[in-house]
Amino acid sequence: MPYKWPDLLLVSAQYGSQIVGKVSPWIQPDAADEALRMDSQAALRQELEWATHLSLQACILHLPPSPSSADFAHVVNQVMHGLSGMAMWLRIPLMSGKSADLPSTAVEEDDSWERWNQVRCLTWHNAKLGVVLDVPAVLPPKEEIVRWYGEPVKALMLPTSVFLNNKRGYPTLTKAHQEMLLTFFAHGVQSAASEAAAAAVHPLRVYCEYLSYLFRKPPMPDGQEQLEVGYRDYLQAPLQPLQDNLEMQTYETFEKDLMKYTQYEAAVLEALLDRVPEEEAATRDIVLMVVGAGRGPLVRASLSAAERAKRKLRIYAVEKNPNAIISLQNLIATEGWGDRVTLVPADMRRWQAPELADIVVSELLGSFGDNELSPECLDGAQACLKPDGISIPASYTSYLQPITTAKLWNDVKVYNDLEHFETPYVVKLHRFTALADTQPVFTFRHPNREAAIDNARAACLRFDRTGRLAAVCHGFAGYFDACLYGSVHLSIHPPTHTPDMYSWFPIYFPLKEPVSLPADVPIEAHLWRCGAHHKVWYEWALTSPTAITHIHNSNGRSYYVGL
Amino acid sequence: MPYKWPDLLLVSAQYGSQIVGKVSPWIQPDAADEALRMDSQAALRQELEWATHLSLQACILHLPPSPSSADFAHVVNQVMHGLSGMAMWLRIPLMSGKSADLPSTAVEEDDSWERWNQVRCLTWHNAKLGVVLDVPAVLPPKEEIVRWYGEPVKALMLPTSVFLNNKRGYPTLTKAHQEMLLTFFAHGVQSAASEAAAAAVHPLRVYCEYLSYLFRKPPMPDGQEQLEVGYRDYLQAPLQPLQDNLEMQTYETFEKDLMKYTQYEAAVLEALLDRVPEEEAATRDIVLMVVGAGRGPLVRASLSAAERAKRKLRIYAVEKNPNAIISLQNLIATEGWGDRVTLVPADMRRWQAPELADIVVSELLGSFGDNELSPECLDGAQACLKPDGISIPASYTSYLQPITTAKLWNDVKVYNDLEHFETPYVVKLHRFTALADTQPVFTFRHPNREAAIDNARAACLRFDRTGRLAAVCHGFAGYFDACLYGSVHLSIHPPTHTPDMYSWFPIYFPLKEPVSLPADVPIEAHLWRCGAHHKVWYEWALTSPTAITHIHNSNGRSYYVGL
Repeated sequence: MPYKWPDLLLVSAQYGSQIVGKVSPWIQPDAADEALRMDSQAALRQELEWATHLSLQACILHLPPSPSSADFAHVVNQVMHGLSGMAMWLRIPLMSGKSADLPSTAVEEDDSWERWNQVRCLTWHNAKLGVVLDVPAVLPPKEEIVRWYGEPVKALMLPTSVFLNNKRGYPTLTKAHQEMLLTFFAHGVQSAASEAAAAAVHPLRVYCEYLSYLFRKPPMPDGQEQLEVGYRDYLQAPLQPLQDNLEMQTYETFEKDLMKYTQYEAAVLEALLDRVPEEEAATRDIVLMVVGAGRGPLVRASLSAAERAKRKLRIYAVEKNPNAIISLQNLIATEGWGDRVTLVPADMRRWQAPELADIVVSELLGSFGDNELSPECLDGAQACLKPDGISIPASYTSYLQPITTAKLWNDVKVYNDLEHFETPYVVKLHRFTALADTQPVFTFRHPNREAAIDNARAACLRFDRTGRLAAVCHGFAGYFDACLYGSVHLSIHPPTHTPDMYSWFPIYFPLKEPVSLPADVPIEAHLWRCGAHHKVWYEWALTSPTAITHIHNSNGRSYYVGL
Repeated sequence: MPYKWPDLLLVSAQYGSQIVGKVSPWIQPDAADEALRMDSQAALRQELEWATHLSLQACILHLPPSPSSADFAHVVNQVMHGLSGMAMWLRIPLMSGKSADLPSTAVEEDDSWERWNQVRCLTWHNAKLGVVLDVPAVLPPKEEIVRWYGEPVKALMLPTSVFLNNKRGYPTLTKAHQEMLLTFFAHGVQSAASEAAAAAVHPLRVYCEYLSYLFRKPPMPDGQEQLEVGYRDYLQAPLQPLQDNLEMQTYETFEKDLMKYTQYEAAVLEALLDRVPEEEAATRDIVLMVVGAGRGPLVRASLSAAERAKRKLRIYAVEKNPNAIISLQNLIATEGWGDRVTLVPADMRRWQAPELADIVVSELLGSFGDNELSPECLDGAQACLKPDGISIPASYTSYLQPITTAKLWNDVKVYNDLEHFETPYVVKLHRFTALADTQPVFTFRHPNREAAIDNARAACLRFDRTGRLAAVCHGFAGYFDACLYGSVHLSIHPPTHTPDMYSWFPIYFPLKEPVSLPADVPIEAHLWRCGAHHKVWYEWALTSPTAITHIHNSNGRSYYVGL
């Protein structure tokens, strides 16, 4: 930020919200020439101090093309510690060693992401450091763009040379450029046109108008998306439904998810038809227990299924939360279910049922399937189940995948302690890059008729990364896929995600230190599910390649779910 | 530790000092078979609890030969957190993928160090975790032994099959085994004979007698070594001679180092002979300034040199410490130096000398050469020097090398903060392994006649590791080599170490997180020497291979030397 912008030109609120500084282009704080290097370092400090004085939100600095950026990182690191609120954005060409349109001056195999990664690691993943991508006329392959989604990209730079002219002589962009911009816009990234000739009065005006038009273009998000926008990349502690009684608001949110109960209804329907042949429909009474009935949505879905199946159903609604019991009482009275539904205020794990059930229905799944202790609860509840009885869900499997997510990792780091790095979070993942396909982790089946039930698990996961670029791993994203009954599934596992269902966001397992991964080399990770007298917890570690992490959350010291 | 040793057999002091527990050999906490695994985990916890009850110093556990030790590490990590004072020692065969005497059952390329490293990393470098090496009959190549010097080896196991019989039928060991044992003994490691047939009454007695004989064999350390033994692997904060006034005890220690002053005397002698030709010896007065005269050893050495050279010398003894001034006054009076020595109570950087000097002599060097700010002091003092005057020392160069040193790293970790990991320490390195040859870092020459003096430095160091094994890097060892004058050097740089000189121990730059290094791959590190108004400090980072560390001590936030 040279001095040519005096501080009387705008008020500080304008400087802070509308202006981003640019460090003078002659500045090379890591120049080989000593005089230039020293002058550059002094000037850089001076310009950044000036920008701070103006309360700018950020200053942009070119990442030098030198193969080692250590000296550059050294200076940036020092000056960043002096900035109060201002950010530093590094301007980086969107390209890599593999892409074709390298400028002829660039070093061969000069991968701009690698240089960014070096600076980012040396500056210890400082949250003040952002990225501004220089968009080239010929875009690199898709995977070279996708790798930036999990990085702290703040803006895109579009030189006027990237634009084409449409029939009326106005600037426009290729389809590929438009698509890329829209994706980045959706990720909260800004754009700017730059480097036009300085001759005309508002030389960039037409370009800016076009970009504004593009920015307005994305369709308004639909109902579900709109609900989710506020949760994007926002860390939430997982629910502890066993320890804590859920609040009305949480029940309300859950009950809005129509698709979930549609699936449950379909599952109960299928189970009833399988269990009671047409000829016994009028005579045979089916006993169904809803364990964890909450405010009744599964009771309603089961009754509705019975009606559609034309089967006779008696329901026990078991619920431990005394507040929900009141709602259930009202519901039963209002709906006139008194003849078919018996209310049981009890903990399903210890309730002595007056008769055995044909079907036990529950909705105890967390984002990672078993993480809200569905296995432990259903192991207890199955005492009420007939030997040939059915559990809905019948089984569930968790899935894991390594991800880049600078945003979330830095949000965890803010707490500045070990505990938060050893806690899994429920989070609507948005600004992230998946680094490999998911792998299945743990599977639980119900009822569990094994002689000695052991819900402890150990998984060794190998993630193939053949053909994948170098990346930084900030931890793992977790999902589940549950089989309710037969072919009816509930899934938040991306390849099989149940459409229009928003009750569960993924789970995020952070790593204490981000791990730099070379291209193509597989990742190995371990995840353990451990149990002790009154608690259950996960432990996790990245075990390959070279940088082996410590085992996170040993003995559940930072996080556990109470039994 | 099975129960067969009841707690009434010995008192706890005996158990604590003389007995090391052994976990039952059938225990395999990572067995593939679920029943065995669960039994093993339960038994392991039980036996360790029993051993803790007996106040044992440690329990020994076999490291399983499985390729991935993650599940094993998981259990060990959990149980270690429950141990109060007791340590866990892993029994590991001394061999590697490259060594020839692999048991036929072992997996190919099964490197026991790699498995140890995996367990150590997963358990987060827990200081309670030690190593017991199983010594084979045929020793692996030297480098496979040396790599363990920096690791927490607690004991060696010598199966009776390793022993030979001498002419009289008594057990003995090969020369190679003896040498290895002596080196490990010198590193504080114990040994034990094991696995004899259980038939005889004291079946291991003759083996133990032989080992006791070996243990007594090493020659008593000489004077210097004896002095150093107490300092081995003991972290010291570097001196701050500019900020603090040294104490009498420190002066005493320094003055005992005769070799250092012998070298200074030789340097002054050479300088005097070069500067004053024989024919001017009787007429020409040489002005020599001792800047930082302390309690006078350099004054004495200079006078002695002048006498031997038969040259006329007048000395100014400049000293800022008022306590040392008193000693100097006494010394001058006692020795009758009044006619030749002028006492100047002043800071050399600001003293206005009444005349210019032919020679300035100083001993301001730290373990890393410039780390006690010799450059800054001499830049000030050279104002007193004639344009063609001589500085003793004339120059000095620092050297760096990456090392394994589990002991020191854990001693730093104990402080449980960032500051101590961003501080260099003076330390008599003992239990360490050098991971590459040293590389020169910074050189300073005096007098410095450059127009604008800049003592800031940046070094990019590349350490070749061709032919070197995989290892863990806990930081860097630093040394210096100073040219006093002509061919006279003072050096603690291992290849040129001045014999019998003990004033300086090496310096240790820790890394916040130990870095696992693959075999053969070079290391790149950066070291910066930075200066601000009232302070000087180093920053450092490991920049290659893959695991790039953060830049340690940015802006001197954790450690600096005051000007």
